[in-house]
Amino acid sequence: MTVAVLVNGHRPSDLAQALPVNDRGFQYGDGVFETMRFERGTVRFLDAHLQRLREGCERLGIPVPDSATLRAEIATVTANLHSAVLKIIVSRGSGARGYRPSGEPVPTRVVAAYSAPENDTQRMLRLRWCETRLGRNERLAGIKHLNRLEQVLAQAEWNDPAIDEGLMMDTEGELVCATSSNVFIFRDGALLTPDLRYAGVRGVMRGQVLRIAKQLGMAVREEPLWPHDLDSAEEVFLTNAVRGIRAVGSLEAKQWTRRVVSDQLRAALGV
Amino acid sequence: MTVAVLVNGHRPSDLAQALPVNDRGFQYGDGVFETMRFERGTVRFLDAHLQRLREGCERLGIPVPDSATLRAEIATVTANLHSAVLKIIVSRGSGARGYRPSGEPVPTRVVAAYSAPENDTQRMLRLRWCETRLGRNERLAGIKHLNRLEQVLAQAEWNDPAIDEGLMMDTEGELVCATSSNVFIFRDGALLTPDLRYAGVRGVMRGQVLRIAKQLGMAVREEPLWPHDLDSAEEVFLTNAVRGIRAVGSLEAKQWTRRVVSDQLRAALGV
Repeated sequence: MTVAVLVNGHRPSDLAQALPVNDRGFQYGDGVFETMRFERGTVRFLDAHLQRLREGCERLGIPVPDSATLRAEIATVTANLHSAVLKIIVSRGSGARGYRPSGEPVPTRVVAAYSAPENDTQRMLRLRWCETRLGRNERLAGIKHLNRLEQVLAQAEWNDPAIDEGLMMDTEGELVCATSSNVFIFRDGALLTPDLRYAGVRGVMRGQVLRIAKQLGMAVREEPLWPHDLDSAEEVFLTNAVRGIRAVGSLEAKQWTRRVVSDQLRAALGV
Repeated sequence: MTVAVLVNGHRPSDLAQALPVNDRGFQYGDGVFETMRFERGTVRFLDAHLQRLREGCERLGIPVPDSATLRAEIATVTANLHSAVLKIIVSRGSGARGYRPSGEPVPTRVVAAYSAPENDTQRMLRLRWCETRLGRNERLAGIKHLNRLEQVLAQAEWNDPAIDEGLMMDTEGELVCATSSNVFIFRDGALLTPDLRYAGVRGVMRGQVLRIAKQLGMAVREEPLWPHDLDSAEEVFLTNAVRGIRAVGSLEAKQWTRRVVSDQLRAALGV
C-alpha cells in the first residue's frame, strides 16, 4: 500500500493524476529506480543505494538528482513511520515524441513510501524455475533501469503463494538471478554468485554480502554460473534490499537444509 | 508538439499531471504502444495497427482495449486536424509495488495527436551504425512494447542532423532494424528483410511492404541478415508508419543511388 509520495518534491493532490503524460519513464521505460528498506528511523545502506542510482543515471545519460534533496524527501515520506519500503524513481522526464533524448533533460523524481511486507527470515524459501529468459545486453546489465518486462512476465508465471521466488536464466541458459533477488551458492568452502556481465541487477544487498563475506575471510567469486551449479550447492540463499538475506529450502524437487553461511552473513550485516 | 491527448477517454486538465504515480507503464515499462500517421481524415493502416496492439496486449497478458473505443478516441483527438502523428499507449495500469501483475488489471489508455513532421520522400536517407546493440529475447521480439531503452541509447549516439537514422545489430551481430524503422535490402531480384525472431519490432509498414511486394510478384524473404548483406545490396530502404518507405542513399562510406523498388512499393501502397 502506498503511504506517502513526493513527485519532484511535491505531494500530489491526486495520486491518480500525478505524472506528465509525456514522461519518458512511461513512454519508454527511460529511467532508473531503487527499492530500499526503512526501519527504526534509517534507510538500510542508503549510501550504497544512492551510489547505484547515480551510476544508473550516468550510464543512461540522465542528470543525477542531488543526494541532499533525495535524503530530505526520504525524511519527508517516512516521517512518523516505523518501517516502510522506500522507492525512488528517476526518469528522464518529459520529452518530445521519439526515442531521441533531449540535450537538456529535466528528470522526473518520485520518492514513495509503501507499507513493509512481513519478512520471516527463519522460514526457508521455496523456489521454482521461470521459463521467461533474460536477454543479454552489456550496455544495460547491472543497473536497475525501468525496462522490466522480463521480470514482470517471469512473476506472472506462477500464482501459488507457497512459491516465494523464481530463478531466471539468460537466453543462453546461464543462471542470472531470481525475479527480484540475487542468488548465492555455497560450495566447497567458497561463496559464488553470477557475475551479471550480460544481464541482471547488481543488488545493493548483493554488494553488502560480497563485502562482508570477504571481511569474514570467505573465498568469494563472481563468475558465470549455470543451473547445474545448483545441483552441487551445499547451501543457497537469495538477497534483496527489502527481504535481506533469505536461505533457500527448495528449488522444485531439489532440497537444502543447510543455512550456516546465510545465518552468519545476516548476523554480520545486522539485517 | 502535443496537439491533443485523451487519458482513459478524458482530456487531462493539466498534461503535466495526468498519469497515476503507480502506473506500471512508468514503473516497469509494462505496456505496448502504436505510432500511426493521420492524413486527410484517415489513419493509415489503422486495422493493422489495432491488430498489432491486440497481439502485443495478448503476449503480455494485458486486457485488450475495445477497438470501437480506440477509434472513437482517435476521432476525438484528430478532430479538425489535417495531418498528425497519432500515438496509442496501453499500459497494465496502476498496481501494487512489485513486478507481479495483478490478476485483474485495469489498463491505462493514452491516445495522443502530435504535429506531423516533414517527410520528403524524394530525399535519400543517410544512415550510420549504432554501437548500442539489441538484446535477444524471443518472448518480447516483434511486439511494440514500452521497454525501449536500447532505442533511446542508440538515438543518443549521434547529434548530427544530417544523419537520418542508425542501423542496429543484435548482441550476436545480426542486422535487426534501424532505431525506429525496419530495413529492407534488394539484391539479385529478391527483397530481403530481417526475420526479427530474436529482436526488433514487426512494423506495420514492414507488413504492408511484404504484402504488396508479394502481390506484385516479387521474391520476398524474411530471414537472418548480417551487416555484410548490405555490402552486396543493390538497393536499401527503411519503413516506418510515420515516414512510410524511404530509400537509403548512404551508410557511412557506402553509397546507393538506386531506388526503383522503393519507388514502386511506395506507389503501389499509396504512401
